[in-house]
Amino acid sequence: MKAFSDRLIDAIKSKNSRIAVGLDPRLENLPEEFRRGTKNDVERAAQAILDWGGGVIEAVRDHAVAVKPQIAFYERLGPYGIVTYYALCRHARKKGLLVIGDVKRGDVPETAKAYAEAHLDSFSCDAITVNPYFGSDGMEPFLDMARAKDAGLFVLVKTSNRGSGEFQDLVADGRPLYLHVARRVAQWGEGLGGKYGWSSVGAVVGATHPQQAAEIRQALPRAFFLVPGFGAQGAGAAEVKACFDAEGLGAVVSASRSVIFAHEKSPGMEWRKAVENAARAMKEAINAALRI
Amino acid sequence: MKAFSDRLIDAIKSKNSRIAVGLDPRLENLPEEFRRGTKNDVERAAQAILDWGGGVIEAVRDHAVAVKPQIAFYERLGPYGIVTYYALCRHARKKGLLVIGDVKRGDVPETAKAYAEAHLDSFSCDAITVNPYFGSDGMEPFLDMARAKDAGLFVLVKTSNRGSGEFQDLVADGRPLYLHVARRVAQWGEGLGGKYGWSSVGAVVGATHPQQAAEIRQALPRAFFLVPGFGAQGAGAAEVKACFDAEGLGAVVSASRSVIFAHEKSPGMEWRKAVENAARAMKEAINAALRI
Repeated sequence: MKAFSDRLIDAIKSKNSRIAVGLDPRLENLPEEFRRGTKNDVERAAQAILDWGGGVIEAVRDHAVAVKPQIAFYERLGPYGIVTYYALCRHARKKGLLVIGDVKRGDVPETAKAYAEAHLDSFSCDAITVNPYFGSDGMEPFLDMARAKDAGLFVLVKTSNRGSGEFQDLVADGRPLYLHVARRVAQWGEGLGGKYGWSSVGAVVGATHPQQAAEIRQALPRAFFLVPGFGAQGAGAAEVKACFDAEGLGAVVSASRSVIFAHEKSPGMEWRKAVENAARAMKEAINAALRI
Repeated sequence: MKAFSDRLIDAIKSKNSRIAVGLDPRLENLPEEFRRGTKNDVERAAQAILDWGGGVIEAVRDHAVAVKPQIAFYERLGPYGIVTYYALCRHARKKGLLVIGDVKRGDVPETAKAYAEAHLDSFSCDAITVNPYFGSDGMEPFLDMARAKDAGLFVLVKTSNRGSGEFQDLVADGRPLYLHVARRVAQWGEGLGGKYGWSSVGAVVGATHPQQAAEIRQALPRAFFLVPGFGAQGAGAAEVKACFDAEGLGAVVSASRSVIFAHEKSPGMEWRKAVENAARAMKEAINAALRI
């Protein structure tokens, strides 16, 4: 298979899109037709999310390069939820979308190996998010599996939440922690480059921190950024410009609520139409900010 | 229900034990009778792990206060694995063991809430491990759920892997990162104390770092430590002494391979007997080091 970074860039070019849609099913926000009978019935809830997710995938497939299911919302439904997560990952790939499993795993080496097998092999994600707190030896098994499967990794560098600075901005040896992590990401990505010259080991950089994004870009000139925080979390197209190069490469911007629950702000419109419109509008807003 | 820290201390006193057994099923290490026919058949593998896990729980229930299933080894088997994880968590609780879900989750607040619901409600763990990289706002939903469910949290402070120092030992404002995290753990635990005066918000502190454990204890005088790295990872009873107070409270030491795969080193012995002996020996070695 092609390197993950190459598959991503091919998708960006062919769809002229730089967005990923977060598949984060909150039952209470689903269109009414899916909510019926799901209260206190996790099996039915998991089935409803599977049906709804199929509709979202269909609605966004021409406008997004990837879906990013956040596994927490599936784990919440216990084993039934994981069955749905698995099925949606498979379905999205069949429909020509890359799947970025937003799992944020990280552990000691022996355990990290099991996580890497779980998410890059059993669940067959094209890429996953990982937490760097354990350091390089905890990353190695993920890197090994990424090499074996031509998969990608997005390492948490600077997260989108308001309180991310508490630890990530602590300054040691003249640099904030997030830049220490970014420098390691550059090392971890060596040997995982693709034909376009971009690494398959990227960084999660919150859209809510444009200034830090520019710093991280300097430390990581050829790593893709996965940029959450667009839309409901407050950042817009202008804020994410620093993540891209002049050709419009280098980042995938992700939004969840503002796209997948767009029907809530478009009463009377068929829900899939509202989702499709929101995905198209986001794609176009980012392209416009980049003048592409 | 009683506070998690009180349930834990009651169990420590009644069993005179300070150990947790890691339920980390590696198929290749299971007794031969369980491995048969599991290759390339995840459904059968998941069933075999369920059967084996029931045997381990029976063998260690008198000698351990808790089991600590590492969810990575279940996720590796996809949805079937999660069914087994769920069933083993329930089974262990019925058999009078506390369940510490070793999930190491951590995320932005909205997602952290879903993870807290997943692991402290849907999977009904008595406690879980969490990753602090996101900071206090990412912790809040876990703390809220711990309060609502009388559950416990063990926050990664200083992990047991060899490379843990890469980020965790970086010094900012005169203190290593792990002590910054420890100070926050103290704050996060306020209001989550039990009648014995110990907090239900504890810390993961690798047994492989006895010196740092003593420092972390100063910052966290009334937080339980979950201490991995005993046995196969190299630490012994002497190394964990710094984690306990004079009454033998303050820590739960966890081992996985050296207990659950003890049959590998006792050829000819019935596998459950080997597991039971290893759990008893570990319990007694720690009590002896503490002169209890």
